[in-house]
Amino acid sequence: MGRMGEFELLARIRERLPASGPRTHVGSGDDAAITVPGGATATSVDALVEGVHFRRELAGPAQIGHKALATALSDLAAMGAEAGEAYVVLGLPPDFGEEECIELLDGMAALADRTGTDLAGGDLTRSERLFLAITVVGHASNPEALVQRAGARPGDALVLTGEIGGAAAGLALLDNPQLRTDFVFSGATEGEKTKSVMEELVARQLEPMPRLVAGRALALAGATAMIDLSDGLGADAGHLAQASGVKLAIEAAAVPLASAAVALSEATDRVPWWLLGGGEDYELLASIPPGRLERASEAVGNGGTALTQVGEVQAGSGVEIRLPGGRLLEPAGFDQLA
Amino acid sequence: MGRMGEFELLARIRERLPASGPRTHVGSGDDAAITVPGGATATSVDALVEGVHFRRELAGPAQIGHKALATALSDLAAMGAEAGEAYVVLGLPPDFGEEECIELLDGMAALADRTGTDLAGGDLTRSERLFLAITVVGHASNPEALVQRAGARPGDALVLTGEIGGAAAGLALLDNPQLRTDFVFSGATEGEKTKSVMEELVARQLEPMPRLVAGRALALAGATAMIDLSDGLGADAGHLAQASGVKLAIEAAAVPLASAAVALSEATDRVPWWLLGGGEDYELLASIPPGRLERASEAVGNGGTALTQVGEVQAGSGVEIRLPGGRLLEPAGFDQLA
Repeated sequence: MGRMGEFELLARIRERLPASGPRTHVGSGDDAAITVPGGATATSVDALVEGVHFRRELAGPAQIGHKALATALSDLAAMGAEAGEAYVVLGLPPDFGEEECIELLDGMAALADRTGTDLAGGDLTRSERLFLAITVVGHASNPEALVQRAGARPGDALVLTGEIGGAAAGLALLDNPQLRTDFVFSGATEGEKTKSVMEELVARQLEPMPRLVAGRALALAGATAMIDLSDGLGADAGHLAQASGVKLAIEAAAVPLASAAVALSEATDRVPWWLLGGGEDYELLASIPPGRLERASEAVGNGGTALTQVGEVQAGSGVEIRLPGGRLLEPAGFDQLA
Repeated sequence: MGRMGEFELLARIRERLPASGPRTHVGSGDDAAITVPGGATATSVDALVEGVHFRRELAGPAQIGHKALATALSDLAAMGAEAGEAYVVLGLPPDFGEEECIELLDGMAALADRTGTDLAGGDLTRSERLFLAITVVGHASNPEALVQRAGARPGDALVLTGEIGGAAAGLALLDNPQLRTDFVFSGATEGEKTKSVMEELVARQLEPMPRLVAGRALALAGATAMIDLSDGLGADAGHLAQASGVKLAIEAAAVPLASAAVALSEATDRVPWWLLGGGEDYELLASIPPGRLERASEAVGNGGTALTQVGEVQAGSGVEIRLPGGRLLEPAGFDQLA
């Protein structure tokens, strides 16, 4: 956009930003935002590019804004950090108008509001394709209060928040009109119920919620290592296993799958295990000594999220997923199930 | 790029990153970087997009990496902050290979090293066009130690670090082969000297240096407001005037112009004042009470940079630039001089 267009749009954006957070002294509008962190910070950056991470024909501007901030905040959840500030870079193509830009920012601001995140600064630029780059800063009283990927020890329980598979099922529905038709005519669910199941799955794909409350509860309860599931259970378990220098043994039957996703799988004659290969659920996978498991479940449950033991940490390396009946699945083998 | 390509490239990148800085507990590779700021932070984000902010036919990968980090750090310089951490998002097109990516990061890492900046994290993505989004975090003992755009008071002196016009002259040389030819044949300078003048101007455009040391010296000496010159003297003075609610009166004859840029102007029959309209010099414009001017000049000079009074702060609004002979120039009128 031209410089004047940029300044005017920036002025409109500033009007819509939530009030500054508790640590923010100077927000958007100066050369830099000024904050007083007061402890340790966790900082993560995430970029989303049209055609790579999202498609504008499938996701509205508000959903794109929501998801970009959600995936960034999910990295803070995976450290057990409190959400603090977000800094937003938008690359705006000529066919993405000012109103769409405001919608995108409103979607982002709504999630910022829900999660106590301060949209403290940003930059706008022209671009051929829409892109977003989001930096989020989270806080903790000290570095030791944050949970890294390294730290899982043999004997630890492996736990998962919420349920997975919903985002993959939602993407399949968005991608494949035939799948929607098959599901509707399968008779697995009826009328309004079918619609709400499909909406739930699509929302899970387009508007994920970062598990910030659960992440802090797990950190407080004594999780030894943690990661968020963006690439998929097998791939992200692999990152945690590698960083910790351990093996993760996962029981597929123990993994909580989204019931709507299972209903879709059954109605369309797919084995539900294909859902294990899906990414973008943004649930948290953590290791925790068995003696702290009960306290962790209660703390995470108090925040409204289930916590399920899905396996254990063993000496060794890599990830092993055991299907019912005893067949072992390598994470790289998920594709065979899809 | 494919996920495996991304992981491999990330591994190569991590090998090349400078050692972690004093505040960084966990750098690149976990869900987030962990730092312990210990005071106030200044955070700024900047995006550079191919075809908008740079052209790959004019700037090499190392220069693109340098300039992206330099422009981000310049915002910290303008607050008087100490450089801390940088987080780098790269959008990589198919025709930008792994070697070019490493060159780009080497250019960035060299500047990071010179300025004491820790490259603490980042994200890679595919993109049709090359883009960079850089978040920089600077530090100060407390929020009051940082200098904002607001704060200039009538009676303050208006000072400028270094000299300006070089970046605009460099861009003109890059853009216009005829200008290079005219300059060579003007006889204004000879042989090797001509070459070194042109190289100096091009470097000023492609590899600007953020004035971090001067910015901290000005903050310590008691600057009341400060901004870096990215859009140009008139435009950026306008931002400072607006934020402070004052008028800035600038004497054009007092503005230090890069001698190489003046030589180019003279050799090609342009009035040197067109240089005032150029951006991207990344010098600092600050207001300071006259009683602190000597101390500020000495402190900035000790860091190897000149400090020049170019005008004063007055009651009122806007920016007034007085040309020799008394003609007043509106910042919007720079184009008439070009």
